[in-house]
Amino acid sequence: MNKLVSLAKRRGFIYPSSEIYGGLASCFDYGPLGSEMKKNIKDLWWTSMTRKHRNIVGIDASIMMNPTVWEASGHVSSFNDPMIDDKTTKRRYRADHLIENHIEKLRRDGREDDAHRVSTYYERASETDDPNKTFYDIIIAEEIKAPDTGSSDWTEVRQFNLMFQCNMGALADSSGIVYLRPETAQGIFVNFHNVRESNRMKVPFGIAQIGKAFRNEIVKGNFIFRMVEFEQMEMQYFVKPGTQGESFEAWREERYNWYIEKLGIEREKLHWYKHDKLAHYADLAYDIKFEFPFGIEEIEGIHSRTDFDLKQHQEFSGKNMEYIDQTTKERYIPYVVETSAGCDRLFLALLCDAYTEDVVDGEQRTMLKFSSKIAPVKAAVLPLMKKGEMGAKATQLCDELADNFLVQYDDAGSIGKRYRRQDEIGTPYCFTVDHETLENNTVTVRFRDSAQQERVNISKVKAFLDEQLAK
Amino acid sequence: MNKLVSLAKRRGFIYPSSEIYGGLASCFDYGPLGSEMKKNIKDLWWTSMTRKHRNIVGIDASIMMNPTVWEASGHVSSFNDPMIDDKTTKRRYRADHLIENHIEKLRRDGREDDAHRVSTYYERASETDDPNKTFYDIIIAEEIKAPDTGSSDWTEVRQFNLMFQCNMGALADSSGIVYLRPETAQGIFVNFHNVRESNRMKVPFGIAQIGKAFRNEIVKGNFIFRMVEFEQMEMQYFVKPGTQGESFEAWREERYNWYIEKLGIEREKLHWYKHDKLAHYADLAYDIKFEFPFGIEEIEGIHSRTDFDLKQHQEFSGKNMEYIDQTTKERYIPYVVETSAGCDRLFLALLCDAYTEDVVDGEQRTMLKFSSKIAPVKAAVLPLMKKGEMGAKATQLCDELADNFLVQYDDAGSIGKRYRRQDEIGTPYCFTVDHETLENNTVTVRFRDSAQQERVNISKVKAFLDEQLAK
Repeated sequence: MNKLVSLAKRRGFIYPSSEIYGGLASCFDYGPLGSEMKKNIKDLWWTSMTRKHRNIVGIDASIMMNPTVWEASGHVSSFNDPMIDDKTTKRRYRADHLIENHIEKLRRDGREDDAHRVSTYYERASETDDPNKTFYDIIIAEEIKAPDTGSSDWTEVRQFNLMFQCNMGALADSSGIVYLRPETAQGIFVNFHNVRESNRMKVPFGIAQIGKAFRNEIVKGNFIFRMVEFEQMEMQYFVKPGTQGESFEAWREERYNWYIEKLGIEREKLHWYKHDKLAHYADLAYDIKFEFPFGIEEIEGIHSRTDFDLKQHQEFSGKNMEYIDQTTKERYIPYVVETSAGCDRLFLALLCDAYTEDVVDGEQRTMLKFSSKIAPVKAAVLPLMKKGEMGAKATQLCDELADNFLVQYDDAGSIGKRYRRQDEIGTPYCFTVDHETLENNTVTVRFRDSAQQERVNISKVKAFLDEQLAK
Repeated sequence: MNKLVSLAKRRGFIYPSSEIYGGLASCFDYGPLGSEMKKNIKDLWWTSMTRKHRNIVGIDASIMMNPTVWEASGHVSSFNDPMIDDKTTKRRYRADHLIENHIEKLRRDGREDDAHRVSTYYERASETDDPNKTFYDIIIAEEIKAPDTGSSDWTEVRQFNLMFQCNMGALADSSGIVYLRPETAQGIFVNFHNVRESNRMKVPFGIAQIGKAFRNEIVKGNFIFRMVEFEQMEMQYFVKPGTQGESFEAWREERYNWYIEKLGIEREKLHWYKHDKLAHYADLAYDIKFEFPFGIEEIEGIHSRTDFDLKQHQEFSGKNMEYIDQTTKERYIPYVVETSAGCDRLFLALLCDAYTEDVVDGEQRTMLKFSSKIAPVKAAVLPLMKKGEMGAKATQLCDELADNFLVQYDDAGSIGKRYRRQDEIGTPYCFTVDHETLENNTVTVRFRDSAQQERVNISKVKAFLDEQLAK
């Protein structure tokens, strides 16, 4: 993982945000290669979900929404974590995590009885009127200390909402509170009728969206895996009640195959996880998990969300959210099957999946084995010599390719060194202009993975790339 | 303008945000056609700025940044408007606007002497120690009332910062304040060395970025022209001090031509505006303005920002922001020429520019005359009859095209009605499968602007579209 983070920064995939100021907790910036690659991922998802499905359309809703949206969705009342502050250090902690870590420590110390006693007490907290009081009592009774500072000057335990809030300025009092959306899904639900009417959609149909969401998480980390600012790629599929099961299965299959067939992720690294404990809105939920170096973690959730959200919005807005089937005249609030992928997590998964160290020509190399659709740079053009006719031909080829692909021009250092540089950023093809080019107008094409070379006519390079990248 | 707003909603370009809850002040959602069109605009800009310039690369920085960034940039101290609250109605107003409107009213009422007196007093406010006190005195002395409520229960005038602020949660006290970026530019400046190093860039070079920015504006309006949440397309070009003048002229020309040549905007609707009053960081600034129905307004600014930002970041971060020319060994802080376009404003300009009403076949029609690169739907496939072989052939054609283009399939209503529907959303080409198709495998292609039709072999449709869209 350290090697990956270092490569990501060194080659311009990902930098810590505002790094010259010491950064900002778990915020990252995508550099030149990272922003291209992220764009490739988003474009691929967008095309797969919208253009390839005649009954799915996209939207792009604003991050700020009417605050009642989040009352209806349940986020204002329930999107909370129990937090406790240390009065001396002014630091904040998740109360439940403090207790869970304490129980684990008791177990590690062989104090199984104590662990069992605390654990039982802790697990019953949710059944009491005031779980936070129970958490507090445990923390005090067990003399739990802050893991980083050793201090224990505790406040009471309070619920801390994970939504960021801002004040919007037209009104002077607090009625101007707006939230930064913690998920993109609600932008789709509130636009259900707008999209249906303006595009004459008939159930079953889907609405897809890519966009930023924000969660004021205290526990962050694992590079870009858990960030407070992140990008979701979500699709809500509206179906007739009773048909959600088959729709769920179809989407489960399609989404799983997408990772393997379109992104080239190894099947062995993907795992299904079925939720035992369902969210209040769901009747079935599976996650697609990926084997990261730091553990097997979720990259996409496929959730059967029932009619919960549309019903809530009907109640809170007073607007009828029913769908009327024009053929059968049936009326119903559609059920929803959601596919919700984390764009940044997927980015990280692809980076991990692609990272390869091997030996080529007796030399150790680092390579990012991206599928050509994902690779930020599609090709590099390398003149054997900087100046003269080779440089001119290479420049011309590079400019010609740039109309359709992101290409890099590199004339610095030995050819071997340049190949390594391209391997390290995952460029699938290198075209070298050499002495033979001046004689017969052919260039070498070098394939990243095999390091094999072939000669191809310079006039055929564009067609060659078109063909390879369409695969 | 009203026709345009109504069409935009009816056909799925733009909806008011959270409309079922009465919306949210000046927030809008892009619907299915709007999100496709916005994506086309962004892709076109990105390609023109990055791929077509070997010395410009892109980044994608996070919206939340270390708060010191905004102290260095001057936004914390100076990104303010003078605001006054009404204690009775709890409404907030721009103090300067109240006074300016009052002066205008005096002029309209023929009270030229009074207007002159107030205006002189008002203009001198900026020279005093406390302009807000002067604003307040004028408002009280002139008995200026709130324009919407008629109330005048005024508080003092205070500076109101236009940056949204949130509290980030790791710390319990107010030290967790973060701002939502009011411009994307600073994400580029703080990454100057990261990008330069990881991509071995040599001055002159540029960094491009597309992303959301937020301003807590009290005065909003004109549909999506001025929103609190908006998307910028910015490029910062780093040059050697002293060469900023020629670079400025080159970018001025390139950016102006982009609108005409790539987007097809009529030259007559674009205007140059030179800033007389320059921002504290600029030594030269021009805006490209567009003739909107509501006035001639800015869509892009080209600003010579000097070395102000890099210098500020050097001072506030303590990091050396100099560039070292490897050939001449010169060291300097580069000057910056910025091109900053508003994506939403450009979207609106293209909508306004494209809106056309004409008569075709003796019938009135509404048409969006988008260039084919901008049009959200590239082609429609229309079977003359829904069922049977025509439907099958049309479906097959539609699926084939969907691999490369966004296409719509429409089999509802008369062909004339379907053409009108496509004209109204700016689809450049309609392909109709009719009786003749079943005989000789040709379809009609109908051109949007001329409404002329030709026949083309069904196997050639994809190549035809490829060729047309590459223009």
